[in-house]
Amino acid sequence: MRSAFRLRSGKLRRHIPVLDWGRSYDRNALTNDLFAALIVTIMLIPQSLAYALLAGLPPEAGIYASIVPIMLYAVFGTSRALAVGPVAVVSLMTAAAIGDVAQSGTAGYAAAALTLAALSGGFLLLLGIFRLGFIANFLSHPVIAGFITASGIIIAASQLKHIFGIDADGHNLAELALSLLGNLSQIHWITLVIGAVSTAVRVWVRKGLKPCLTGLGLNVRIADLLARAGPVGAVAATTLATGLLNLDAQGVKIVGAVPQSLPPFTMPDVSADLISALIGPAILISVIGFVESISVAQALAVRKRQRIDPDQELIGLGAANLGAAFTGGYPVTGGFARSVVNFDAGAETPAAGAFTAIGLAIAALALTPLVYFLPNATLAATIIVAVLSLVDFSILKKAWIYSKADFTAVSLTILVTLGFGVELGVSAGVVISVLIHLYKTSRPHMAVVGQVPGTEHYRNVLRHEVITEDRILTVRVDESLYFANARYLEDCLYDLVAQRPNLKHLILMCPAVNAIDMSALESLEAINARLAALGVDFHLSEVKGPVMDRLKRTHFPGQLTGRIFLSQHQAICALSDNLTPAEQKQKLTS
Amino acid sequence: MRSAFRLRSGKLRRHIPVLDWGRSYDRNALTNDLFAALIVTIMLIPQSLAYALLAGLPPEAGIYASIVPIMLYAVFGTSRALAVGPVAVVSLMTAAAIGDVAQSGTAGYAAAALTLAALSGGFLLLLGIFRLGFIANFLSHPVIAGFITASGIIIAASQLKHIFGIDADGHNLAELALSLLGNLSQIHWITLVIGAVSTAVRVWVRKGLKPCLTGLGLNVRIADLLARAGPVGAVAATTLATGLLNLDAQGVKIVGAVPQSLPPFTMPDVSADLISALIGPAILISVIGFVESISVAQALAVRKRQRIDPDQELIGLGAANLGAAFTGGYPVTGGFARSVVNFDAGAETPAAGAFTAIGLAIAALALTPLVYFLPNATLAATIIVAVLSLVDFSILKKAWIYSKADFTAVSLTILVTLGFGVELGVSAGVVISVLIHLYKTSRPHMAVVGQVPGTEHYRNVLRHEVITEDRILTVRVDESLYFANARYLEDCLYDLVAQRPNLKHLILMCPAVNAIDMSALESLEAINARLAALGVDFHLSEVKGPVMDRLKRTHFPGQLTGRIFLSQHQAICALSDNLTPAEQKQKLTS
Repeated sequence: MRSAFRLRSGKLRRHIPVLDWGRSYDRNALTNDLFAALIVTIMLIPQSLAYALLAGLPPEAGIYASIVPIMLYAVFGTSRALAVGPVAVVSLMTAAAIGDVAQSGTAGYAAAALTLAALSGGFLLLLGIFRLGFIANFLSHPVIAGFITASGIIIAASQLKHIFGIDADGHNLAELALSLLGNLSQIHWITLVIGAVSTAVRVWVRKGLKPCLTGLGLNVRIADLLARAGPVGAVAATTLATGLLNLDAQGVKIVGAVPQSLPPFTMPDVSADLISALIGPAILISVIGFVESISVAQALAVRKRQRIDPDQELIGLGAANLGAAFTGGYPVTGGFARSVVNFDAGAETPAAGAFTAIGLAIAALALTPLVYFLPNATLAATIIVAVLSLVDFSILKKAWIYSKADFTAVSLTILVTLGFGVELGVSAGVVISVLIHLYKTSRPHMAVVGQVPGTEHYRNVLRHEVITEDRILTVRVDESLYFANARYLEDCLYDLVAQRPNLKHLILMCPAVNAIDMSALESLEAINARLAALGVDFHLSEVKGPVMDRLKRTHFPGQLTGRIFLSQHQAICALSDNLTPAEQKQKLTS
Repeated sequence: MRSAFRLRSGKLRRHIPVLDWGRSYDRNALTNDLFAALIVTIMLIPQSLAYALLAGLPPEAGIYASIVPIMLYAVFGTSRALAVGPVAVVSLMTAAAIGDVAQSGTAGYAAAALTLAALSGGFLLLLGIFRLGFIANFLSHPVIAGFITASGIIIAASQLKHIFGIDADGHNLAELALSLLGNLSQIHWITLVIGAVSTAVRVWVRKGLKPCLTGLGLNVRIADLLARAGPVGAVAATTLATGLLNLDAQGVKIVGAVPQSLPPFTMPDVSADLISALIGPAILISVIGFVESISVAQALAVRKRQRIDPDQELIGLGAANLGAAFTGGYPVTGGFARSVVNFDAGAETPAAGAFTAIGLAIAALALTPLVYFLPNATLAATIIVAVLSLVDFSILKKAWIYSKADFTAVSLTILVTLGFGVELGVSAGVVISVLIHLYKTSRPHMAVVGQVPGTEHYRNVLRHEVITEDRILTVRVDESLYFANARYLEDCLYDLVAQRPNLKHLILMCPAVNAIDMSALESLEAINARLAALGVDFHLSEVKGPVMDRLKRTHFPGQLTGRIFLSQHQAICALSDNLTPAEQKQKLTS
């Protein structure tokens, strides 16, 4: 009984991690978590408004998306420091997805955002429950890097309209550039000044403030946190200036009235049309969001030797997105900037997230009048400076040096993302990664090997002085055998056999074959049958244990005209013994 | 000069294989080829009409599709015995593809078939020119087997309407079954008698005629060929009966008037709408056709120790399909039945194909009046008996025993093909094969290893009694490292490290790592950086030559906190030497 209970409670703790860390929560952790929450809350208020702007949603959606999702993640997530909420790339992808089904600013647009969050949450939850987190691995690192870089450029370009105070639209770089250039005559100069100053201040805060503060004798960690929270200063200054000078009356676009309210209860629209239009984008957003989140969570966890359970992370993010769907938000994930700030500010447990949520709830209830005069241009500057730090073309150079295949994948991902938008970009990235992998493994390295004289080693005949025989051919294949290379193996072996009329034995040496799938098994059977018809015996050598276990379940070892040898040397010894005396003599003298 | 000429002429010969075999063509080969062509021509006349019926095209399209394509393949193809023309599965896929854009029997339908052949030909040619034949390998053997089985069932079901003399339509089994059952009251009994008798005769010819003929003292090979050509008897008998008894006036559907003409010159419709609707199906048809064709060609070539060049085969099939597009045909490929008959009848060179084309051209010019009274029910019987030999569920049992992953792929392919039609079926097959492969390699086998006492061997600690140390952890990974398993590797190593507070050295043992892609390189860099932060040195051992060559191009070996050892034993010796005397003592006594 007791052990059954412990088992169940262990399982429960795995799925509701709060039960685990909650038990040892103490006053020290509470102090640290409260301090971190305060810093993060201050940083998140303008950031949430900015990302809502990027997603084309009303500003409060950004704040709502940061409250309940954080709390749900605190209950179900495994990372101690991850801060969940709206992030730049997911906001952009949200805008791209729901821009296809509704007009920005309409009620239908906000409703579609809820549906998107619900679909994304449901999908993540399903992946987590069925432990399918590995699908996120189908995005290769270089493809993700390329995608994030290209997305950063598109996001920055999409925000330029707010800096210039003009209208522009488009989901890819060409559309955006044309649209911006077409409307350039409408530049609103006061807006541009606000935008330019905000951007300059943001850049300076990022680069120059921290050295300045440490120069003033501040502790490095405090200086760093102040520098990160610094943009709030730019927000306050431009808001104040706009309010005092009545710049909104002169055409400067401002955030305006934001309802003073806790997150409302909202019901996502689940009409079949909307679901079928959004399910594809929802899956892409989920995967990209998960990849971004798990990378951050992993990086922070390792610093403290903590563990992240990717499948449980899916459940945490799924719950967070469902939370966003029912409380007026939009798709969320674990954000890099906010999580690092949270970690650096000393957050010890997910409770810091819960306290942040409380701070934001207070802000949503009481502080929204303070952002009435906040100019959109300031928010755009916040976004631009944030995303330009994501832009990093060095991946191209690195890939070029290391692997032309990876270079192809990165550059195509960047080009497709810039040229056709984020959805096609990330899809292309996945497809290209997979195709390149299949291509590389579809033509495995194969070598005809011979014996290094006086040893039991067998090496490539092209690279070493080795002993071979006319009657025996040994081919080493340096790759697992599966459907993508099974036919290539057949082709190569047939070619080699066709060139050798005196051949009696073909040995396939398998020290690097980690698996043989059914296509490859059928190819081996075909090779065996066809060689049999030519009077050539087919042998295997150095087959690994797990591969051999599987082969033993089939008729193949029985059908094999030759034998399966533990080592290549055994094979050569056994087969050479069958030489006729004349052949042995020839072998000795050759 | 001369060697340059020889080089060029060698290259030319590779791309136009007729220049190669044509030089040594003699009277003996001519006799054999002429005999084979006669047999194949007799067999092909009813078969071509039947497949045109299956594709929903006028009967002459089947004959036209067998004339110019065969000749072009004879010039550009590399197989000596492959017979190119309409085949069952491709005919069904043609019907499915153009059924979406036009109504069967209309001029638009036949025009769409030409476009489909042109697109398919162009695609195959491009693949051949850019040597991309490997993409056909992305279809695993079991998936192909499942697809062919399911297609055979759909084809047989689609022909039942001709046997029953009723109307029915549908591209998947459910649609076909419902449609057939709904119209069952319209059964045309005379048609059913013709269909049933034809089917019975075809089955008997297949199973019973050959033993009967050999019983009568005929040579086995002749008996076999007669049995294969035997269906022509059933065709002649039912045609004669229908004509003499005027059964067409009673409602028996017949082939009717077929124009007496050589293949006409036709121009495929290249409107953008049609191309965008057909390009997807054309790619699927090309790939399936290529896979079927190359399998047959390969099987026949090996029997005579001849070679097939897959990329040149693409060019041959591409030319054949373009030929079909411009001469009133529809997509073609190398067929199994006709190629085997051609081979068994003694065809020595592709000239046999050219002679077959001449035979069919004579038939198209002069013999079409003979098939006027040929009942559709007889053709349907021809198709049903032919395709039911493709249906083979034994693949399911074999896959179940060998690999649950392959079993999943086969059964899903069969279910999707039966339930949603051939196009979705084959697409699903490809996607499932790839996903399963990625899934399997995304969780590679990894083992913590220790030293087998008194040896230089290192084995899994869970399976063997081995020596390990608290300060040194060696992990062997049995798979190439790439994007799909890079994160898993990180997860596993971090978990292992998190459990070992005293750890100082982590050695990754790579004897089965055939490649490290850039994602995996970045993961190794991340592992190195994170372990460094924890004071753990990261080492590699037994890295293969090609992998090491690539790593040397990067900063990784320089950044590595530890070293790269040639052998695992060197690693252990080097790292154990750094033990404090107390630790060495502990090691010796443990």
